[in-house]
Amino acid sequence: MRYDEKSVRTIQVTTESAQYPVIAGSGILPTLYRRLPKRGRIFVLTSPEIWSLWSERFLASFPAQERPLVLFLPAGEQYKRMAQVERLAAEMAAAGADRSSLLIAFGGGIIGDMGGFLAAIYMRGIDYIQMPSTLLAQVDSSVGGKTGANLAVGKNLIGSFHHPLAVFADIDLLQTLPDRELRAGLFESIKAGVIRDPRLFRFMERDAAKILSRDSKALEYVVTASIRMKADVVGIDERENGLRMILNFGHTVGHAIEAVTHYRKLLHGEAVAWGMLAALQLGRMRGTISSAHADRVEHTIFAYGPLPPFRATAEKLIEAASRDKKNRAGVRRFVLPKGIGEAEVVENVTDTELIAAIDWMLARVREA
Amino acid sequence: MRYDEKSVRTIQVTTESAQYPVIAGSGILPTLYRRLPKRGRIFVLTSPEIWSLWSERFLASFPAQERPLVLFLPAGEQYKRMAQVERLAAEMAAAGADRSSLLIAFGGGIIGDMGGFLAAIYMRGIDYIQMPSTLLAQVDSSVGGKTGANLAVGKNLIGSFHHPLAVFADIDLLQTLPDRELRAGLFESIKAGVIRDPRLFRFMERDAAKILSRDSKALEYVVTASIRMKADVVGIDERENGLRMILNFGHTVGHAIEAVTHYRKLLHGEAVAWGMLAALQLGRMRGTISSAHADRVEHTIFAYGPLPPFRATAEKLIEAASRDKKNRAGVRRFVLPKGIGEAEVVENVTDTELIAAIDWMLARVREA
Repeated sequence: MRYDEKSVRTIQVTTESAQYPVIAGSGILPTLYRRLPKRGRIFVLTSPEIWSLWSERFLASFPAQERPLVLFLPAGEQYKRMAQVERLAAEMAAAGADRSSLLIAFGGGIIGDMGGFLAAIYMRGIDYIQMPSTLLAQVDSSVGGKTGANLAVGKNLIGSFHHPLAVFADIDLLQTLPDRELRAGLFESIKAGVIRDPRLFRFMERDAAKILSRDSKALEYVVTASIRMKADVVGIDERENGLRMILNFGHTVGHAIEAVTHYRKLLHGEAVAWGMLAALQLGRMRGTISSAHADRVEHTIFAYGPLPPFRATAEKLIEAASRDKKNRAGVRRFVLPKGIGEAEVVENVTDTELIAAIDWMLARVREA
Repeated sequence: MRYDEKSVRTIQVTTESAQYPVIAGSGILPTLYRRLPKRGRIFVLTSPEIWSLWSERFLASFPAQERPLVLFLPAGEQYKRMAQVERLAAEMAAAGADRSSLLIAFGGGIIGDMGGFLAAIYMRGIDYIQMPSTLLAQVDSSVGGKTGANLAVGKNLIGSFHHPLAVFADIDLLQTLPDRELRAGLFESIKAGVIRDPRLFRFMERDAAKILSRDSKALEYVVTASIRMKADVVGIDERENGLRMILNFGHTVGHAIEAVTHYRKLLHGEAVAWGMLAALQLGRMRGTISSAHADRVEHTIFAYGPLPPFRATAEKLIEAASRDKKNRAGVRRFVLPKGIGEAEVVENVTDTELIAAIDWMLARVREA
């Protein structure tokens, strides 16, 4: 597999409402300051863990008198709530943040979602930068403008579409990522390959060992290809009225698994991996994907495992799936694979089919 | 003064990001249902007071099986907070609201701001309708897409730009409005006249008695002319980067008065009226407006009084004004009248000038 030798790539995101670059590669963090627009004050939202690992290198490029003000959000879904958004907004106001201020969201997916949401609603919207520190955030959540917080009754039920000024995806940050989080992020890249980039899929199928050993060039290719796929889809359908729904491949069942396990047992990417297995089985049953292709995807998913098992029944999962916020006016949407590199959204999946696919998946869970 | 005899007028709002009609006039409420888009479920956000006065007529046009679900927000600035937005979002989620649901904000300015904000962030944005029940909300806050909530440290520091699908301004609702609230709303219409519509100003100058007696045709003219002015300005500058700032005529000092009196003593429109008097004096001092014109505006403001007095010092007001969120990167902006029907934004008002103008205003406050 050939992949580009340059260490920093720029992928342009162009949607109806915004245009911005994703800068991906190595060595971005040490040059951060000169890449920022020079306007008002700079604020950083991060987690105590990420900051303790990376603050020195983060601050290295800032002149002493331009040090950003640092806001902290503890790690964990339980802090992805409105009360924290309000607390952070109050801290910004107390520190004199105004409409010219810039917020940098530096951390994983929750920091990115919450930072984006905070920027979206502080004084009705200020500029912000995504600086994702996890693979999941780099390949998926930092691109596309979705921001948000959880309600007690469900994840991401509150939020805004608010695009960043830029995304800086520095793969050097992945060197301190726990192994399980790396694997969980890679499932979203497998998804990217399956739904729209057969070349990325084949690379991940063949070079799992290299990728899992965090080879820089291999990670760089996976990250940039995943981002390119997402930028492409979001550019065509920003508000998820059509094509963007394919990004939910594996997510209907994945979200249901997360809900029934109370977001404690599995990482998001792991739940999506199980969800992709169920969607693959649905594709096999309907004949939208050949068994040979489905088996290759399945085999590749397991190559990035282990996938943690969990306890659930098909009934509970279907009940949770019916509450998915992607459903509109009672219609349940489902993303099915069409071979490798293409997917389609269907609305006519019956409960019987879904139970069969989920039961098949649960049989694999019991083997795990 | 001639004004149009039709009882319902449509004013089109066309901004960069949205296009929607403001339907203004009499008899709109009884025909509400047929004016709504038919899609998902309908939710109404209102206050207990408004609902007890108007629910029967509100529901009259709804088929029995299409009754909307009613959400309540108690009256008062203390409820214009994130915790209430979260509570309302949770109630919507529990009732099965999805992305196809429609929210109607039925009430005064706080209901409109909070309803718009709730719609802006529920599932990252659902459609909503503004149905303002106060004059202030009809002539000002329901048009333009500004939504929001307060932080403990300041008003409207959290929010979104989110335009409604339509605004229904039924002047019949004004018949139950307390007299003081009617007068407070009329100050925003005087503002509209002074900054951009000399014809509206002259009408209000001459026909105060008719307007204050709630003559339907007179109110209809004031409401539609005010909305037209706002729609015009917002269409040119949606995000308040330039022209839209003139809408803040009287608001820099007005907001400062509200802040130092803890939002308890004066209604918003009353504080703005005092603020306009200070801005007029600044205009006199700078010669941007002739004394004759300034006197006419001043006289007209007092004709819609009484303006409640309050206690404050120039120093406290200037300190509060310096925290205004319209300021960017430390620059204080100020709107000055240029004759009647035109205003300009300046950035070079000194503390000395501002103190002189505020002291002049405070002398009038002591006479009140």
